[in-house]
Amino acid sequence: MQLYKDQTLRIHNSLTGKKDVFEPINEGHVGMYVCGPTVYSNVHLGNCRTFMSFDMIFRYFKHLGYKVRYVRNITDAGHLENDADEGEDKIAKKAKLEQIEPMEVVQRYTVDFHNTLQQFNLLPPSIEPTATGHIIEQIEIIKEILEKGLAYEANGSVYFDVIKFNENHDYGKLSGRKLEDMITNTRELTAQDEKRNPQDFALWKKAEPQHIMRWPSPWGDGFPGWHLECTAMSTKYLGENFDIHGGGMDLKFPHHECEIAQAEASTGKSPVNYWMHANMLTLNGRKMSKSTDNNIYPAEIFSGNNNILSKPYTPAVVRFFMMQAHYTSILDLSDDALQASEKGYNRLMEALDNVDKLKTSGKSDFDVKAWQQKCYEAMNDDFNTPILIAQLFEAVKHINLIKEDNETISAEDKDLLASSLKAFVYDVLGIENQSLTKDDSNTLNGVMELLIDIRNEARAKKDFATSDKIRDQLVELGIQIKDGKDGTTFSVN
Amino acid sequence: MQLYKDQTLRIHNSLTGKKDVFEPINEGHVGMYVCGPTVYSNVHLGNCRTFMSFDMIFRYFKHLGYKVRYVRNITDAGHLENDADEGEDKIAKKAKLEQIEPMEVVQRYTVDFHNTLQQFNLLPPSIEPTATGHIIEQIEIIKEILEKGLAYEANGSVYFDVIKFNENHDYGKLSGRKLEDMITNTRELTAQDEKRNPQDFALWKKAEPQHIMRWPSPWGDGFPGWHLECTAMSTKYLGENFDIHGGGMDLKFPHHECEIAQAEASTGKSPVNYWMHANMLTLNGRKMSKSTDNNIYPAEIFSGNNNILSKPYTPAVVRFFMMQAHYTSILDLSDDALQASEKGYNRLMEALDNVDKLKTSGKSDFDVKAWQQKCYEAMNDDFNTPILIAQLFEAVKHINLIKEDNETISAEDKDLLASSLKAFVYDVLGIENQSLTKDDSNTLNGVMELLIDIRNEARAKKDFATSDKIRDQLVELGIQIKDGKDGTTFSVN
Repeated sequence: MQLYKDQTLRIHNSLTGKKDVFEPINEGHVGMYVCGPTVYSNVHLGNCRTFMSFDMIFRYFKHLGYKVRYVRNITDAGHLENDADEGEDKIAKKAKLEQIEPMEVVQRYTVDFHNTLQQFNLLPPSIEPTATGHIIEQIEIIKEILEKGLAYEANGSVYFDVIKFNENHDYGKLSGRKLEDMITNTRELTAQDEKRNPQDFALWKKAEPQHIMRWPSPWGDGFPGWHLECTAMSTKYLGENFDIHGGGMDLKFPHHECEIAQAEASTGKSPVNYWMHANMLTLNGRKMSKSTDNNIYPAEIFSGNNNILSKPYTPAVVRFFMMQAHYTSILDLSDDALQASEKGYNRLMEALDNVDKLKTSGKSDFDVKAWQQKCYEAMNDDFNTPILIAQLFEAVKHINLIKEDNETISAEDKDLLASSLKAFVYDVLGIENQSLTKDDSNTLNGVMELLIDIRNEARAKKDFATSDKIRDQLVELGIQIKDGKDGTTFSVN
Repeated sequence: MQLYKDQTLRIHNSLTGKKDVFEPINEGHVGMYVCGPTVYSNVHLGNCRTFMSFDMIFRYFKHLGYKVRYVRNITDAGHLENDADEGEDKIAKKAKLEQIEPMEVVQRYTVDFHNTLQQFNLLPPSIEPTATGHIIEQIEIIKEILEKGLAYEANGSVYFDVIKFNENHDYGKLSGRKLEDMITNTRELTAQDEKRNPQDFALWKKAEPQHIMRWPSPWGDGFPGWHLECTAMSTKYLGENFDIHGGGMDLKFPHHECEIAQAEASTGKSPVNYWMHANMLTLNGRKMSKSTDNNIYPAEIFSGNNNILSKPYTPAVVRFFMMQAHYTSILDLSDDALQASEKGYNRLMEALDNVDKLKTSGKSDFDVKAWQQKCYEAMNDDFNTPILIAQLFEAVKHINLIKEDNETISAEDKDLLASSLKAFVYDVLGIENQSLTKDDSNTLNGVMELLIDIRNEARAKKDFATSDKIRDQLVELGIQIKDGKDGTTFSVN
């Protein structure tokens, strides 16, 4: 039997504003769409947190036995510099700056994105579609919305008519805004505006002659609006109504509000049952920002090449740090917080190394079944990873007590403890045990220098039994020691 | 000044059948397109060899100072099971077998492809476009070919008219085939065939109702022919006439022949100046084939989990092995060959470790400038990596002689030797120095066991100076030794 049949999972749904019991559309299946990056620069640590949160959610659904189709897109066209459908395409602008083809920009930063997420041990999504790969599908949706009379063409561009849509729908229901308030608070249109109302948004933008990213359409050469791609890709791969749509908090309005409007306008259906939003990451108490230098990239954390942190931290430690906060809370990154996480991470990994070696006895002082249920309860309560981690440290405490013979555990409980602990740490939280692999090469060099030193001392003392033993056993390990004029060196075969 | 100004590079051009001097269309720039994988299964070792060959070529152009735009596509639709435009789409078929969406198949094997190529240290291409990302561009080319009267519509599909094209063009010029011979040797069309001639090939195929991968077009719902995607993507990103088109030998006919026909039919121009073809990889003297079990995947080589080889080989050793053959030669993989390559690889890495430490003197016994020129001559002769590697071992020989004080080298020559050797091995051949990093973790464990053993012996002999030294220096390296009931263990912080 699948685990999910025993668990009642509650999800904070941005659409209802409360924790709703999760009921999938198709039993045993989850369809989840998450807005991916616009690939015009190196991936931001805040974005990494968002994708890591949804990776944990993806992993927990899989752990529960669901078959998950997880779609996370790549935005490689159509994302303009500001939300009012103005400014340059972000990728085209970068391409102009670097004097390369826009798709070279896309490739460079897609590779960076994948590499960074791989370092953080994120699983690849089931499908990773691109905006440029779905121009036809976007054009088809525009045609449908035009047919429904909820969009209009103006000078080769097509805009969504928010006022008209709101007559029979509720524009603003996700973000909790009222259209009347939006109208009151928005600047008025100028004479050269193509939009009928300032709230309207572009479904298709006419390409000016100098715009390189362009495709033919019934309205002339142009490119799709940013909001439209997610509607096209989510419905193509998950259907007109699917389970979960996620993204960063900053995408709730206008991006996700517009997605709902587009889908409802074209299909008449509400597209998504559970809207989930991950919260932001701050740095030393302030918003991260390149312009104020209050910013750090993942690679800078791993290498230690930065002016913000006292030392390098591994991807696993950073991931552990991120998981210590709930995905809907603001999380502040600082050197102190990372140091604390590193200590906790090391304690946890040590317990994982020890759990299999515990001696067993007839009875258990630790109620492993009850503990395991508390872990599930934490995750079932809107993926509450900080509570889960607190439970994991409860297990660590008992592992240490058992190891020091101050408590006992039965063989059956030990197996359950070991398998549950590994499942929650490795499979659900996605935290790798890097305790031994980190910097092995440097450590090995240091240890070898010491061993060579001990060997030379033994030879000086004419303790040839020891020096020969060292040499012979190293040969067995595939390590050759060579005595040269400049001292002793070694090489690994 | 850029290096390329000093070098005359000759490339074996499949179109002319000889080694032509390379003259780029735009000085200092190279446009190169290579046919990428059809992502419906794990990447085959033979394909890895092809992509590795073009990676080396990409790297040499960059080394020479060219600005290279290297486009390698992903075929994620349209590749049917056989070349006669029949059978199922390879990806759709796999999706049906695995009961998943075709794009899930694409994602799974694209991830595998990228991971494998990254292990082999291939650089990402400049642009990596997909067939499904360029449906519109393909439709536009079909329209142009139809307008020129060189294609015809039949029952919702569009076919290229080879006989008519051949009236004013030379169909078969790349593969050296004559259309008359092809006609003589081909089966006759049956009544239900839509094609006018058996040599005609599909530009667009009508999608049957059960076909999931489909797009709207002027000829109804369907999908593009396989040959067309490469014409669409190469011309979009490199122009109607570009420098180099590469691929595996097996793609010369019909795939590349059809690409030439499509491009000439739509633009009137010859698309490619230099056609390059990489040769195949055999295994123990026979063609690799899954059905006969004469097959091995990269991951099986790296892990040693296979019935063919005596031990695991690292990606760097396999790459070195591949580079020891010319890309246009058939290469046979076997355990003996890999063992020999591993020995050579280790000698080369050892020399690279030693070259910086060489003592210098007033004069050189080794003419480094002349040697360096021979390296360039090898590469300039159609990227002759086996000759280059022979030259590298010439350098290894001298490095060892100098190291053993049997030859001398000047400081200036040492610098040139070190920088050239590193440039050719690391930058051009793309071979990583994995001599120390491989299995460091296991090696470290083995060395630590030995060290703990030595420490325990010292304590037994009451040689506390030695045992304390070991413990203290390990603490400095971040390694804690713990003496417990079950013996001594260690942990790395």
